[in-house]
Amino acid sequence: MRSPQISQRANDMPPSPIRKLVPLAEEAKKRGIKIFHLNIGQPDIPTPPEFMNAVRNYQEEVLAYGNSKGSQKLLSALVRYYQRRNIQVEEKDIQVTTGGSEAIIFAMICVADVGEEIIVFEPFYTNYNGFAQMADVKLTPLTLKAENGFHLPFREKIEEKITSRTRAILVCSPNNPTGTVYTREEMEMIADICKKHHLFVLSDEVYREFIYEGKHTSIMNIQGISNQAILLDSVSKRFSACGARIGCLVSKSQEVMDAALRLGQARLCSPSIEQFGASAALEIPDDYFERMASEYKRRRDTVYEELMKIPGVICLKPSGAFYIMAKLPVNDIEDFARWMLTDFSLDGETTMIAPGPGFYATPGKGLDEARIAYVLNVNDLKKAMRILAKGIETYNSR
Amino acid sequence: MRSPQISQRANDMPPSPIRKLVPLAEEAKKRGIKIFHLNIGQPDIPTPPEFMNAVRNYQEEVLAYGNSKGSQKLLSALVRYYQRRNIQVEEKDIQVTTGGSEAIIFAMICVADVGEEIIVFEPFYTNYNGFAQMADVKLTPLTLKAENGFHLPFREKIEEKITSRTRAILVCSPNNPTGTVYTREEMEMIADICKKHHLFVLSDEVYREFIYEGKHTSIMNIQGISNQAILLDSVSKRFSACGARIGCLVSKSQEVMDAALRLGQARLCSPSIEQFGASAALEIPDDYFERMASEYKRRRDTVYEELMKIPGVICLKPSGAFYIMAKLPVNDIEDFARWMLTDFSLDGETTMIAPGPGFYATPGKGLDEARIAYVLNVNDLKKAMRILAKGIETYNSR
Repeated sequence: MRSPQISQRANDMPPSPIRKLVPLAEEAKKRGIKIFHLNIGQPDIPTPPEFMNAVRNYQEEVLAYGNSKGSQKLLSALVRYYQRRNIQVEEKDIQVTTGGSEAIIFAMICVADVGEEIIVFEPFYTNYNGFAQMADVKLTPLTLKAENGFHLPFREKIEEKITSRTRAILVCSPNNPTGTVYTREEMEMIADICKKHHLFVLSDEVYREFIYEGKHTSIMNIQGISNQAILLDSVSKRFSACGARIGCLVSKSQEVMDAALRLGQARLCSPSIEQFGASAALEIPDDYFERMASEYKRRRDTVYEELMKIPGVICLKPSGAFYIMAKLPVNDIEDFARWMLTDFSLDGETTMIAPGPGFYATPGKGLDEARIAYVLNVNDLKKAMRILAKGIETYNSR
Repeated sequence: MRSPQISQRANDMPPSPIRKLVPLAEEAKKRGIKIFHLNIGQPDIPTPPEFMNAVRNYQEEVLAYGNSKGSQKLLSALVRYYQRRNIQVEEKDIQVTTGGSEAIIFAMICVADVGEEIIVFEPFYTNYNGFAQMADVKLTPLTLKAENGFHLPFREKIEEKITSRTRAILVCSPNNPTGTVYTREEMEMIADICKKHHLFVLSDEVYREFIYEGKHTSIMNIQGISNQAILLDSVSKRFSACGARIGCLVSKSQEVMDAALRLGQARLCSPSIEQFGASAALEIPDDYFERMASEYKRRRDTVYEELMKIPGVICLKPSGAFYIMAKLPVNDIEDFARWMLTDFSLDGETTMIAPGPGFYATPGKGLDEARIAYVLNVNDLKKAMRILAKGIETYNSR
């Protein structure tokens, strides 16, 4: 008997390039191999005790549905948090989401109909592909270059990509996977293009506090774009609370916020206990972020130094987030990343990286690039990078 | 300056008919009015201590990303839970989702492409409309009748709705909003139709334990349909843990499960702490459900008796879930529901109901119907129903 086929869009849904090698990693672990996970942006920093203590003190007798917009406590904590970042928003401008993931998909649905286009700069956060597939939106990629630190191209290059079906430009700064922090001029250029062409700007700023040089510019602080700007955010990285699934979508556009709330109502609410935990974490004084940023700066420096020691590696030192997108001297990064898990180890240890192609929408790009997430302590990072160096050497002399 | 417009689909996204009156309820509360919330399926039963104790004992130092498929602990707890319900599934057949909501939207995306059709029986759980809108899937409604207890029509009536674009039939038993429990024969008929026409069956069974007469039949226990059946589930109702946002999608179809995992990978994981809590709750012995069902049975009987005392009300006594869909003797239920919040109170109290039209896809249906969620204790329910009775009388004699 013929079974029904799943939909084309489900069939075309891409596997996570960050996660698809996990089964190979599991097998390596079963063989007793220790793996340094530089493939996923999962920080090793403990979640602040304020978060976990709040969770332990959650006293509701009934774990009831929350407000679809977000809990009152979390909304007001977010307003205060943004104020400390010089971002002036009110509760009405915020829709709490189930992770930054949901903020991205809500934003895509809000700005684009099926088949319409959103311009992205590649390499980009790989899951944008998945969300676009779910929302049936086309991502129009504009390829950035490692040689100029993955900064934005001239505005003409961007405007060339705009068609009658373009609805938005999606930016991410500090950037995942490149670590690039866009300058105020770059953010203003994007805003200006969007004003001229009547586009929305979606601005993913989940790495706001992870800045090692320069200054972060939020889309919310660019003049004259307020009805077109949608900020996408998450507590995951800044509080090392990736499992909490608490994020938000922020906009001054009443139309966008009304639509976001209707989308929020369909899925009822974000997780209540973790909203409670996030509310507490958001009140943490800023020295927490200063300590965290200085720790990550040391990690970045370590990884960068170690990468520079590997013959044939090309990358610039990134200014933010906790990723480096590096060109490695291998022909087929997917094969190399797999091989590191299946065939290679050094003293019983190996290093897992995220292959470049998953961060591109253009086929054939990123074939010799990898994203390295520096989310381990400096000693482990040194070890992991030396294993990577030895791996490259061994792989190329097979 | 012209601002960009939001997308048509975001614009068309329906507000939750259950939640859209909330602002009026908030205003009533500010005026000091106590509101009996029969509008939303939010049980008053305490969340089991097993759930909350597990949450308090969650000891991970880093609240890290979990497995996209669901935590190992939760997957194995789900397998055992289903075994106790005589549903034989393995971990590979389960995708943990962020609430039953996500299970529904994942299923819709998995079975239907943009513009394709899913047959639903109306009245239905109102948020199916929202999910269909998000997924750009068309719901083809087949209207059921209060007079025969909202049971399914003859198979010819169902088959008449099938077109070349139909991809699935979506059923919910015990039903929200009608409380109807489909018989084994009804479930077999649906399965048989889906086999004949190569359709998927999506079976929403979140109220499985809420049965007061008859027996629940899971789609997973219908022979010969295993590659076409997708079970949608949630811990929200059975553990009074609606705020946890933990559900699952279950299928024996490898193709469906692979696609569901890819969808799951895009949003990374479901909330970790609440997966942990749900895992503990799923181990609760079955007498918990027996006590709960007998409490809800008393509530159902109370609401039904009180409804029968109101002249002009039409409804049959439902066998499951915790809702009654009743025809009330008012011309415009939307207006009446609003009026109950804005203009009416009895001794400082009023009753909030969910207007019928939101549970239909066909315009003009349900204009004199309301969904009543019997989620309060018997005394409060009696009060709430007497207020409703007095409200109807007053409204009609204005």
